[in-house]
Amino acid sequence: MTATNTTEPFVVIGGDAAGLSAASKLKREAPHRDAIVFEKGSWVSYAHCGTPYFVKGDVETLTDLLSLSPSDIRDRGIDLRRNHEVIAVSPMEQTVTVRGPDGEKIHQSYGDLLVATGARALSEPISGSQLDGVFTLHGLDSAANVRAFLSDPAEFTVESLGGDGYVDEATATRYGAMTPPETVAIVGGGYVGIEMAEAFSAWELDVHLFQRSDHVLPPFGTAVAERVEPHLDEQGVTLHLGTEVAEFSGEDGRVDSLACSNGTELAVDAALVGIGIRPNVQLAAETAVTLGDSGAIAIDEYGRTSVDHVYAAGDCAEMPHVVTGENTWVPLGLTANRAGRAIGQTVAGNPTPVGRIAGTAVVKAFDLECGRVGLTNLDRARDAGFDPVSETITAGSRSGYYPGVAETTVRLVADRKSGRLLGGSIVGGDRAAIRIDTLATALEGELSIEEVERLDLAYAPPFSPVWDPILVAAKVLNGQISS
Amino acid sequence: MTATNTTEPFVVIGGDAAGLSAASKLKREAPHRDAIVFEKGSWVSYAHCGTPYFVKGDVETLTDLLSLSPSDIRDRGIDLRRNHEVIAVSPMEQTVTVRGPDGEKIHQSYGDLLVATGARALSEPISGSQLDGVFTLHGLDSAANVRAFLSDPAEFTVESLGGDGYVDEATATRYGAMTPPETVAIVGGGYVGIEMAEAFSAWELDVHLFQRSDHVLPPFGTAVAERVEPHLDEQGVTLHLGTEVAEFSGEDGRVDSLACSNGTELAVDAALVGIGIRPNVQLAAETAVTLGDSGAIAIDEYGRTSVDHVYAAGDCAEMPHVVTGENTWVPLGLTANRAGRAIGQTVAGNPTPVGRIAGTAVVKAFDLECGRVGLTNLDRARDAGFDPVSETITAGSRSGYYPGVAETTVRLVADRKSGRLLGGSIVGGDRAAIRIDTLATALEGELSIEEVERLDLAYAPPFSPVWDPILVAAKVLNGQISS
Repeated sequence: MTATNTTEPFVVIGGDAAGLSAASKLKREAPHRDAIVFEKGSWVSYAHCGTPYFVKGDVETLTDLLSLSPSDIRDRGIDLRRNHEVIAVSPMEQTVTVRGPDGEKIHQSYGDLLVATGARALSEPISGSQLDGVFTLHGLDSAANVRAFLSDPAEFTVESLGGDGYVDEATATRYGAMTPPETVAIVGGGYVGIEMAEAFSAWELDVHLFQRSDHVLPPFGTAVAERVEPHLDEQGVTLHLGTEVAEFSGEDGRVDSLACSNGTELAVDAALVGIGIRPNVQLAAETAVTLGDSGAIAIDEYGRTSVDHVYAAGDCAEMPHVVTGENTWVPLGLTANRAGRAIGQTVAGNPTPVGRIAGTAVVKAFDLECGRVGLTNLDRARDAGFDPVSETITAGSRSGYYPGVAETTVRLVADRKSGRLLGGSIVGGDRAAIRIDTLATALEGELSIEEVERLDLAYAPPFSPVWDPILVAAKVLNGQISS
Repeated sequence: MTATNTTEPFVVIGGDAAGLSAASKLKREAPHRDAIVFEKGSWVSYAHCGTPYFVKGDVETLTDLLSLSPSDIRDRGIDLRRNHEVIAVSPMEQTVTVRGPDGEKIHQSYGDLLVATGARALSEPISGSQLDGVFTLHGLDSAANVRAFLSDPAEFTVESLGGDGYVDEATATRYGAMTPPETVAIVGGGYVGIEMAEAFSAWELDVHLFQRSDHVLPPFGTAVAERVEPHLDEQGVTLHLGTEVAEFSGEDGRVDSLACSNGTELAVDAALVGIGIRPNVQLAAETAVTLGDSGAIAIDEYGRTSVDHVYAAGDCAEMPHVVTGENTWVPLGLTANRAGRAIGQTVAGNPTPVGRIAGTAVVKAFDLECGRVGLTNLDRARDAGFDPVSETITAGSRSGYYPGVAETTVRLVADRKSGRLLGGSIVGGDRAAIRIDTLATALEGELSIEEVERLDLAYAPPFSPVWDPILVAAKVLNGQISS
């Protein structure tokens, strides 16, 4: 790797978590270096994970979801250029080509470059996804449009959405004027689908959730799904499991029905497609940056790509996994913030690893809290060279006699040979999700299941029984492995 | 150590968590061996930590606090003898001398002996502690008496207390007939004092809490106390910090006032003394079992005392500390259950370590949740050979825009030289206490503060912000250590 030309700026492509964390950190550590952030859209630094709660109404305005305003960002000494799309990178010349808001082309040289282009929501291969009333939930504009659509036209104003003037007014106004939907189809039972089921139910819509596979929340495994599914049903959500939505149709450009591969048809007046996201890697791929097996950008422990002076972070990049050591693609908010910050520090001259991921994820499913971490899929664990064993238990979240005790299901996976904990999942109604942090920490410490069983975890009747559900699960799994 | 005579029974002194866990485990693993449990009182296997919530009324009856009934215990094949006090142990002959319910003396031989004699509440050196209306809260009878005293005499019945007929009826009936107190003094601001402040407030008493040192909850440190104290004040509890209660007085044998060393006097009609507990080691000490520096019984990693075939576990015994490796006395419920279970397994022929403790403790203080773990006192950390550095931060428990976000204060302590995490404390109103498990796990894994900073902890707006308060604290402390 050649030495960085520190008289040239640090250029960042993408103005969200990873990109702005990196630029902010660089400006704190090395204020003399220029940092330029190109963002192709108009929104920057927003809390993507909060959008379902904005749609639901728990979060009042889009402004609440903005971590930093453009002026906050400029106050940090960052040269932020919104509505600037980087369309080419020349690693030989160390320049990027940018299309400005009026279509003009700008050439910008860089000393170091960070690709933080994020990910995009899939709506393919469902035909008719372009119809009005069919949404993905990726970005604040789609959140604005869904909420506008749900609102009473007599009371709706674009201003009520907040957003400091960045909302796409024309589209939001158009949705705000429509008759609100009464029946909505959610396509995809992942995080977004589950969170949006809660959001739409709060607006008293008739909610139908379609999941192609046999269970919702696939990364959480069936132990979690088997509790979430009846709970969704209790909440009035109609589940269509093992059902693939093939097509939306409608007249006058507005959705009015859907059809599934198995022949199911349903009249709907809105649809939310949350069938996954894909890393935005086209620009990087054209720059000869190596992609990993996942399709996201491959990086080393400092976030460096295969091309000199080009880093990648956030939803477009892979990260090394705590358990397997292999690069994996798990696009989540903390990863993006942490990797961006580490790269800012590295670029400032203080090499800092981007860290590892454990694949920690938590989601609220109405009144249930779900968490997962590490390797929970037995086939995947075998592929990684382990001999996985698992156990699932259900135990109280508090002392049995204390009000509010809730059944908490814990599934743990360990390697039979070494006894090492490989992963786990949790579901329950009382402080279940946050308990996954115990397992994430155990994975980082490479604890064996026997060591997990002996953890001195908290006990007080309002918060945990004598044997925390995690300890109960570890005891049972350790018993199975030792026997 | 000489070989165990497995034709002789496993004898256990004390019928609570440690003793019954050991006997139960032995009977599961080696059903042919006899297990005899001598309990000097009439209560067995009860949830001590639940007593404040029984007094408060969150737990309806004493029966709810019983984990196992005497018949459950017998069903496990355990020979349970209530109201049998072991008054002497002869390790040479491997026998115990027991005083039965009618004063008769019984000699019982043992192959292995477990001393699980627990601890007792202190009320010394406060004079007048024997007056009616002055209580400690150690055991179900004191809980029964306090609740009887609080109850409306017109409605009170001994039966309403539950307890399967084991309540000391005469005393409970006497308290139940008294005019309920209006002003109560709690002496001692430890767990019991704080939990009982909540319990008495629920009965609408005027609650005064006296703490000899300058802050409540000393093991949790001032970062926690400084949030708990104003919260107690908001809840209407009058705090008397740095105030030592010296004397209770009263007429006709019933408390009506107290006097403090600093001259403060207060009219009270009830008092709860929670100034600490001491291990019950008299019997062991007479048996030439070695005590540790703490005054509790010293054990090895299998729970063996210095005397052949004599084990100790629970509130009367020390345990090795995860951070220092030294034996420490931290009497808590999980420790007792775990050590008892391990000893049962060892006695059954499968040697199992009793584990280590991290000093994990959590307590509910009205609407605040508090947790602590490891070495948090800097002087103690220095005594253990570390060069401790600490930082305290306050951050949100959830994303700032999500309803219910609560300020969460985290204090972390690490060793400057090695960077190793030594301990921490947490306080806040939203899922704060259970987060201590993350730190307990990090201590077990001997993680450095840098590794804690890089933990892949959970993030979802309803449960945690992008940077969990623990990560924020680790970042700040790591910054201080690295600089």
